[in-house]
Order: sequence, then structure tokens, then C-alpha cells
Amino acid sequence: MSIVVVGTVAFDTVETPFGKGENVLGGSATYFSTSASFFTDVSLVAVVGEDFPQEHVQFLQSRDIDTAGLQRIPGKTFHWTGKYGYDLNEAQTLDTQLNVLTEFRPNLPESYRDAEYVFLANIDPDLQMDVLDQVRAPKLVACDTMNFWISSKPESLKKVLQKVDLVVINEGEARQFTGEANLVKAARSIISLGCKRLVVKRGEYGVLMFTKDSVFAAPAYPLEQVFDPTGAGDTFAGGLMGYLANTGDLSEDGIRQAIIFGSVMASFNVEDFSLERMKRLEYREIEARYKNFKSLTSFRDIEPL
Amino acid sequence: MSIVVVGTVAFDTVETPFGKGENVLGGSATYFSTSASFFTDVSLVAVVGEDFPQEHVQFLQSRDIDTAGLQRIPGKTFHWTGKYGYDLNEAQTLDTQLNVLTEFRPNLPESYRDAEYVFLANIDPDLQMDVLDQVRAPKLVACDTMNFWISSKPESLKKVLQKVDLVVINEGEARQFTGEANLVKAARSIISLGCKRLVVKRGEYGVLMFTKDSVFAAPAYPLEQVFDPTGAGDTFAGGLMGYLANTGDLSEDGIRQAIIFGSVMASFNVEDFSLERMKRLEYREIEARYKNFKSLTSFRDIEPL
Repeated sequence: MSIVVVGTVAFDTVETPFGKGENVLGGSATYFSTSASFFTDVSLVAVVGEDFPQEHVQFLQSRDIDTAGLQRIPGKTFHWTGKYGYDLNEAQTLDTQLNVLTEFRPNLPESYRDAEYVFLANIDPDLQMDVLDQVRAPKLVACDTMNFWISSKPESLKKVLQKVDLVVINEGEARQFTGEANLVKAARSIISLGCKRLVVKRGEYGVLMFTKDSVFAAPAYPLEQVFDPTGAGDTFAGGLMGYLANTGDLSEDGIRQAIIFGSVMASFNVEDFSLERMKRLEYREIEARYKNFKSLTSFRDIEPL
Repeated sequence: MSIVVVGTVAFDTVETPFGKGENVLGGSATYFSTSASFFTDVSLVAVVGEDFPQEHVQFLQSRDIDTAGLQRIPGKTFHWTGKYGYDLNEAQTLDTQLNVLTEFRPNLPESYRDAEYVFLANIDPDLQMDVLDQVRAPKLVACDTMNFWISSKPESLKKVLQKVDLVVINEGEARQFTGEANLVKAARSIISLGCKRLVVKRGEYGVLMFTKDSVFAAPAYPLEQVFDPTGAGDTFAGGLMGYLANTGDLSEDGIRQAIIFGSVMASFNVEDFSLERMKRLEYREIEARYKNFKSLTSFRDIEPL
């Protein structure tokens, strides 16, 4: 089974207390597809400008990512500049050059339209809806969003949420979107809009996954070195969706397992700048860290006193 | 087996977005001993003033807590006034009236000195050391502390940490104490001082427990209503130590189970002001929530792709 991801391919300039990366490869679709490619076939839809180097395209292709949907148009590639302090949970955006992103109209190649798994990364919810109209019978659609769309296009966003199976959102954004300080209430409120599952990302504290009648808590992997959190959320989503597409198991148990694989992938990604850690990651490391997650969280069943 | 706890018995005046409690029963030893009393016998060492009502002493005794070590001396009882905003993870201290606490010299009744489990709640580390000198052969000693002692008596605190088996500390305090932004590094640094186990409390994000060669992550129970987080940390420690004293199982597995019981107790305590929820809590509810923690965190072992 294969996944289609629609999102951004970008240049990032990122500064953390541990170093700086200038004009490095970034973007939600880049992180997502690289992460998912460890588990399944991925097809990417995004736009870049004339300045986007062929070596980055070759990297994606080296991961067997289908780049037929990567449009190259006149102009410059989307460029995000951000900074992290010692609190690595929150990026400070210093500059956003949308460039060719302003002209992005996702147009799915015919071969993409039968995709069974679709990830709508963080882009304009109206474009997310456009994509939904182009896919024929997906088994599972997930989406991400951000504070900018919550405040500028809440109604469009609500329509998207009603149509997707799984929403991935940051903790602060869940609170912002619903006006609820309590996260459980915020989650219930988003689910009541019509999405079946909500995954709330909490940075170094892990994730909570809500359905109408269940909650699953997964920690983040405790790391001694976090170099750059950029892309952690999309790498998480890539591992989650990639594993789901691989197994096709959409039961609660199957999705919980996929959440852990997502957490594993994110934990590797933050160990280095840009996609450097992904570039040298091997599948046996993923399996080993999954097992570490198991021992990190295991405790005995209750024995009556 | 029984526990001795040394700490504070206090009046609290607490305001949260959900209400206000004036001059309600509080204090670290109060929360700890009430919580631990669901699992084992507890003996309390603390000081109160002449204004402390007999009904509160009777409440502690109704929970079979030994109050022989509760000194009553001339003056007024310790009074803490604090406030929580919508971010219930952090209390803002508005006023601290130490009152009789300034004259507190923990003096353990002879019958307490053979205690096998000792909890040194958050008090002056020099007093914590005094207590350590009075107990003969404890099986397990745990301690808590706070930012005030970290900045005012770091050397005394280090001596205490070297002598105890288990340290319970807030996330921010672990960072403050070690000057390490990364929590795993901060934990390793505290363990290198000589304590065997470190439990880092992260409020609504749960706890991490570190030893030299293991980490355990437990989430907090996701609650739709959190009325008052006051005492959550001491209630957690009470459940943890109470369960350990009950089973005597100090293996990694035994302590992990105790961590979950502590988390269960804390999750109940925050559901109402002061100790109101504890007063109406029944053991079957504790067991039921332990089982909920199990389903909250369970996921399958890895199956090779």
C-alpha cells in the first residue's frame, strides 16, 4: 500500500543552542515522506522553485519516494528561518519567505488518486480540501495544521477536520482551536467536530491519542542530546502513517503500535540537524528503539492487595 | 511495615480558576500520610500551632495515621497562600507565613525510630539530615525538596541526596539544581551525587524515574476536571511509598508498580480542593484507576515487518 503526502518542501535556516543550519533541506512533506519511506512507498506532492538543488530531489528518490508530484515552478523555494532556545519544545519563527508556496495548487498525478493513505501536512486548509476532492477512496486520511490557519481560516479548517480520520495537532494548538484550557476537554471538542481520532503532540512529553471512548498516552523517548526539533512532528506523522500503510491494521492496537513507531522516528530525527539523522538511519535501529520504548513504559498488571 | 513521614501540616489558602479554599487543611506530611494510609500504617512527624483544630487531627487519626509525632507548640500554624492560573502545572506563591515552622525540630518518638520506610518531605535539608540520624536501619529512605532549598542550602541538600535511596523532585528543580537544560543529563548528574533512584515529577505530563541504567516513563492520568493541584506531588509520593511499604518489593518492577499507584493517588487528589477527594476515596476506585492506567499506556510488542 502506498501513501500520498501533500505539504511543503523547503529550505530551513535553524539555530539551536547546539549549532546552526543554513539553507538546509526542510519542509513538512520532506520530513514526512523520508520517515514514512522506512515502512512503505510514498508519493509526494509539493512545490519548489528554480533554486532547489537536484541533489535534494535525488536524496528523496534514493529513499524510493515518488517525486512525480513535486512541481518545480519559476521563483524561489519556500524558506523558513527559526530559532530554538533551551526550551526545545517551542520554535521562534524569525522569518517566513513563502515564495513559490503562494502559487501552490496541489495537483495529484493520476497515479496518486487511488492512494489508500493520504497525509495532508500543514498547508492552507482550502488546499487540503482540494486534495481531498482529488483522491477517490482512501482508507485513511490524516491531517496536520498550525496556529496560523486556526486563527485565519477556522471555518475551512473545521470542514477539513470533519472529513479526515485522524488529526495530528500540537497541544497548544488544540487549546487555541477550542478555547479550552483543559486538554481532555479540548480533545473531546475537536472529536465532536467529526474527526474520529485525534493525536495531540506535546513535544518532549510525547503524545496523547483520543477517540470518542479511549485515550492512549505515549511518552517521548528521553534523549540526552536533542540537537534540532525541526520536523519532529512530521517525522512522527510519517512513522505513524508509514507503519499503518505497511500493516493495514487500523484497529486500536494497530494504531497504538504505529504511534510508537512515529515516536521512534521523531526521536531519531531530533538527534541531528535537518534530515541528517534520517540519512544514516537503519531499520534495525528503529526496531531496537521500539523495544526500548516497550521497556521504558512497561509495568506490571495489578495484583490485589 | 510502616512509614514515617516528616514534613509540614499546614493551612492553605488556594485559588484556582475553579474556586477558592480558605484556611483549608494542607501541608506535605498531611497529603503524604493520607495517601499512604490507603496502603500501609503511617506515622507522622510535624508541628502545628495552638490554632490547629482538633477535627483535622481526628481526620488523620480516622485514617489510622499515628499522630504521636505531631507536636503542638505555642504560636500559629504554618500558612501557605497560593494561586494557580489555567496552567495548573505551576503555583504562584502569594504569601508564606512560616509561624511555628521556624521552631520545628523533628524529634522522632522512640517507637518511630525502627521505621523501615522514611519519607523526608520538603523541609530544610539540615532537618532532613537530623531525621536521618534518628532512624536506625531503614529499608528505604526517600526525600523531596524545593527550589528554595536548592538555592539557599545546596551543600546541605547534596549531603541528604547522598544518603537517600530515592529522590522525588520537580522537573524545573532538577534543571535548576544541576544547571542542565536537558532533563536526562540533569537526572544523570543528580544520580552521580549518590542517590540510587530519581523520580522527576512533570505535573500533567507524569513522571520519569531514572536509575543509573534504566528509565521508566509514566503519564499523568488525563482528567477532564482538575480543580486544585495542591498536594499532588506529596499525594503521589504517599501512594508510591505506601505501596512499597505494603509489598516490600523493591525490585525495578515493584517500584514501577508503586509509581503507578502514586500517579493514581495524585490523579484523585487534584479532582477536588484540599483533601476532600481523599476523604471520600475508596480502595476499589484506586484499583479501577490502576487498571485504567494499564489500558492508557498499553501497546503491542514489536512484530518484525
